[in-house]
Amino acid sequence: MDDGLLHDLLRIWPVGRLATADAAHQPHLVPIVFCLDDAALYSPIDGKKKRGQKLKRLQNIAANDAFSLLLDEYDDDWQRLWWVRLDGVAGVYRPVGDHDARLHRLLSAKYPQYRDVSITQDDPVYLRLCWNKVSAWSETDLATNVRRALRNR
Amino acid sequence: MDDGLLHDLLRIWPVGRLATADAAHQPHLVPIVFCLDDAALYSPIDGKKKRGQKLKRLQNIAANDAFSLLLDEYDDDWQRLWWVRLDGVAGVYRPVGDHDARLHRLLSAKYPQYRDVSITQDDPVYLRLCWNKVSAWSETDLATNVRRALRNR
Repeated sequence: MDDGLLHDLLRIWPVGRLATADAAHQPHLVPIVFCLDDAALYSPIDGKKKRGQKLKRLQNIAANDAFSLLLDEYDDDWQRLWWVRLDGVAGVYRPVGDHDARLHRLLSAKYPQYRDVSITQDDPVYLRLCWNKVSAWSETDLATNVRRALRNR
Repeated sequence: MDDGLLHDLLRIWPVGRLATADAAHQPHLVPIVFCLDDAALYSPIDGKKKRGQKLKRLQNIAANDAFSLLLDEYDDDWQRLWWVRLDGVAGVYRPVGDHDARLHRLLSAKYPQYRDVSITQDDPVYLRLCWNKVSAWSETDLATNVRRALRNR
């Protein structure tokens, strides 16, 4: 997959389904929002959840840092189907210095919801996803289908 | 989650994201189509793929039969967000007798694409997903959000 198209997709596409697996090999799945900064994705862990029971995705990556993230869109017209999958290593990330404000800016630009709520209050925590493998598939032409999906956002 | 609503969701919702994990704990993700029959989901493995290299999802469940399947829909209005996750045991399934025709009927009723192509030719193979745990979440009221999503299908 073309680097420019992948960059556009990661910058614009609003949702990914994140798979992790625990030490007993049980896979776990959750939809996430994220922003792209440099060669990593950052997915905010919100304060409410942080303070409660430890999230399963965080427990899993503490035991096993491998992740798989799927970006795709279902369409009743199967000629338009596509998916892009990133595999790599996940970690818990606490931004320091300017990076805190930068991530909040990136998230707010992508999701208006973050403009009103300060996710930077107290102790901002992100899941950082660094991928080392990109897989992609489309029923027809991948670039055509991904660009159409991005235009329709 | 209410059994009736779960049944409606599994009968109508067209896509799930399926996570499996290999023996090295690496999670794997792919979108799937499926039909509901009794207390299991059946996802067809198409002939082209069957004859080629063994699919990663099939390799994984041979080594580790645990799966996680996520049904959800992204919406820019976060009040409408919801997801339902099924965890359980996956297996490769070759229908015998009437069950072959029945699964084809169920799939064709859900996906017009299957009306034209016979997936029952030669050696029909399905992934069978038997769940033993249902988790669900919604930003607001789960039933309201799931029912809205189903109405909009």
